[in-house]
Amino acid sequence: MSNPLRLGIAGLGTVGVGVVRILESHADLLAKRAGRPIEITAISARSKGRDRGVDLSGFAWEDDPVVLATRDDVDVYVELMGGEDGPAKASTEAAIAAGKHVVTANKAMLAMHGQALAEQAEAGKTALKFEAAVAGGIPVIKALTEGLAGNQITRVMGVMNGTCNYILTRMENEGVPYDQVFADAQALGYLEADPNLDVGGIDAGHKLALLSSIAFGTKVNFAGVALEGIQRISTTDIEQARDMGFRIKLLGVSQLTGRGLEQRMQPCLVPVNSPLGQLENATNMVVLEGDAVGQVVLRGAGAGEGPTASAVMGDVMDIARGFSMSTFGQPATGLQDIQAAQASAPAAFYLRLTLKDAPGALHKITGALANAGVSIDRMRQYSHQDAAAPVLMVTHKTTRAELDHALDGIMATGVTLESPVAIRIEDV
Amino acid sequence: MSNPLRLGIAGLGTVGVGVVRILESHADLLAKRAGRPIEITAISARSKGRDRGVDLSGFAWEDDPVVLATRDDVDVYVELMGGEDGPAKASTEAAIAAGKHVVTANKAMLAMHGQALAEQAEAGKTALKFEAAVAGGIPVIKALTEGLAGNQITRVMGVMNGTCNYILTRMENEGVPYDQVFADAQALGYLEADPNLDVGGIDAGHKLALLSSIAFGTKVNFAGVALEGIQRISTTDIEQARDMGFRIKLLGVSQLTGRGLEQRMQPCLVPVNSPLGQLENATNMVVLEGDAVGQVVLRGAGAGEGPTASAVMGDVMDIARGFSMSTFGQPATGLQDIQAAQASAPAAFYLRLTLKDAPGALHKITGALANAGVSIDRMRQYSHQDAAAPVLMVTHKTTRAELDHALDGIMATGVTLESPVAIRIEDV
Repeated sequence: MSNPLRLGIAGLGTVGVGVVRILESHADLLAKRAGRPIEITAISARSKGRDRGVDLSGFAWEDDPVVLATRDDVDVYVELMGGEDGPAKASTEAAIAAGKHVVTANKAMLAMHGQALAEQAEAGKTALKFEAAVAGGIPVIKALTEGLAGNQITRVMGVMNGTCNYILTRMENEGVPYDQVFADAQALGYLEADPNLDVGGIDAGHKLALLSSIAFGTKVNFAGVALEGIQRISTTDIEQARDMGFRIKLLGVSQLTGRGLEQRMQPCLVPVNSPLGQLENATNMVVLEGDAVGQVVLRGAGAGEGPTASAVMGDVMDIARGFSMSTFGQPATGLQDIQAAQASAPAAFYLRLTLKDAPGALHKITGALANAGVSIDRMRQYSHQDAAAPVLMVTHKTTRAELDHALDGIMATGVTLESPVAIRIEDV
Repeated sequence: MSNPLRLGIAGLGTVGVGVVRILESHADLLAKRAGRPIEITAISARSKGRDRGVDLSGFAWEDDPVVLATRDDVDVYVELMGGEDGPAKASTEAAIAAGKHVVTANKAMLAMHGQALAEQAEAGKTALKFEAAVAGGIPVIKALTEGLAGNQITRVMGVMNGTCNYILTRMENEGVPYDQVFADAQALGYLEADPNLDVGGIDAGHKLALLSSIAFGTKVNFAGVALEGIQRISTTDIEQARDMGFRIKLLGVSQLTGRGLEQRMQPCLVPVNSPLGQLENATNMVVLEGDAVGQVVLRGAGAGEGPTASAVMGDVMDIARGFSMSTFGQPATGLQDIQAAQASAPAAFYLRLTLKDAPGALHKITGALANAGVSIDRMRQYSHQDAAAPVLMVTHKTTRAELDHALDGIMATGVTLESPVAIRIEDV
């Protein structure tokens, strides 16, 4: 059996502790599978004294992750601190510069600096792997870069933020409004310190940007993701969607079009009997479409100690087995710098308007829609006690540009009390 | 860019032609991803003259696959002829002996000779890869051996024969009896030349035996798979199952128990709202459960030109990238030779009995059940014009041994006109 593979782990939160537990409980199994033992030699975290429920006494301690990352007795630097910049980025760069392989779960860092880090790693012939950064325990990076490597990928879709899906599921199942479920989720510790990372779609957008790069051979372009959160989704929207046979999901969609790379992370209506529509609670799902394979759907836990540690260990095992590949599945220097494109394919949209209860209001709205060339498939107006009249519609298929034109026209009528809610109905 | 990787392909049916098409249309993309060109140098098939819709004039032709497999200008032998023995096995052995890597879609050959072939390949330090042999385009071998390599796998389940799932789906959706759907499937060319490979569960059993080996580090043991086909499933069974919130699937289940390796490929009732229960038509699904990752579900096309060729190309790309690993995820010589175990965990069972319409018949049946310690959760007897009275029951949870005891007792009463149909209700 060959020399052990030696890990230095920075960050001992949930995931870090999960990795320690796997290495402790499965040492023999991992050695058999990898052909060599895998050991932790050194660790680093914010607080040395804290009891994490695992025995860390056998590992060297470093206060500074940069020092940890460059130790002579570390072959693989496992970065589990998180954060787009700061110590995570500094230590990752230091590790690569010192010729170490890097395994990270840090989607924010990669979404912002992935191109530069991948180029650095490839120049230094070290591995930079990040299975744990996207969709937790689901081995989706591996499926895309390796299993489906014979395909031209045509579309990638995914529900990749478990917290948002949990909120939407509870709103649907219990009829509880967004604010209340949000407060519960916060109390339960399901939300990031900055909740906008979750409910604003940023976290899921980071993941989508990484998948796009691999799928289409393009440079990571998080700024090019059309982002929209779930904050404005109401139980009315959810009920109306269900009445029509749909569920609302925070759905990421990425595809190459003739006009550039389209990346969207926004609430969508999907058919209730599709795999995406059936997804409940915090589970994640990624749908990969390739020209040869057709549609492959992957479903699993998107977060949590075990699932995320499992993904980290998948990367570690690849390195232990000597599998060496470009970070994004092809050399980073050759990735295309492609422009961002708005959604171009026409789609039907669900619209919710809140109108002043005044004569002619609905007439003005339908006029604005007609002006923009948007035609109405279905419409409902609800009876109401107060001065606000909710109106719900589904349009026929239209482009986003036409819809935006219609929405501008609707706002200009002066009869709306809130800006309209528009949700795309996605063909999945 | 390094030297090209040179393929010799034996077998130019649907899958072989699919591989030729991918290599032809995606040459640049594959070279970018693999870091080297991938080329076909030589081919072999039964009929040289047949028009396959692709241009084969640039490739050397060999009548004998053994000669093809050992050509100097072949680095990877791609075996797509099929067949448990004969030319497939002879050429695979010859390729390995000549130091070639082998990629195959041949589940039958691997289920019967996988252990010997893997040992031969590992001794010769060549790769023997078979992603295309299990669940078509779904990269499940890769997910299990690599992505989930940090897990102790606890259970593997799967619907892995598209033809059986197509038959069961049509029986349910159209209420058409088995014999008629079977005849349609045969006319459409969906069935193997020996249809028992499909409807008898043998093909799916081969796949399960391969997954078990990888999941649990045990020697491939196809003989240890408890096999039962779908031939006796009636539309009555399907309707009754649906009434109770279940669908009937030809489901493979494999798990390690204290008494050995349990492998079953048999019709089961699964909840209609579970991912497995929602699977329709020819789509395949594999459910992987690991101690860290929890449940990961993979879904995709289980057969066909594109999907299967995609899987073959995934293996070819791994070899092109220099990824080298034991066939079953750990050295074949170290795989455990474990005994086969019967299902041990108690389960509820669905029973359909056909009784003589005679006084006391039902009393004798309930007596046989009581004698064996099997208690009844629900029962229905149908009105009938002829002398055969169908009786349907669902038992409380019981072991398979107790159930078999009860079934023996039921047969011994002499009041049954057919042997009982017993279908396990699976916890998925």
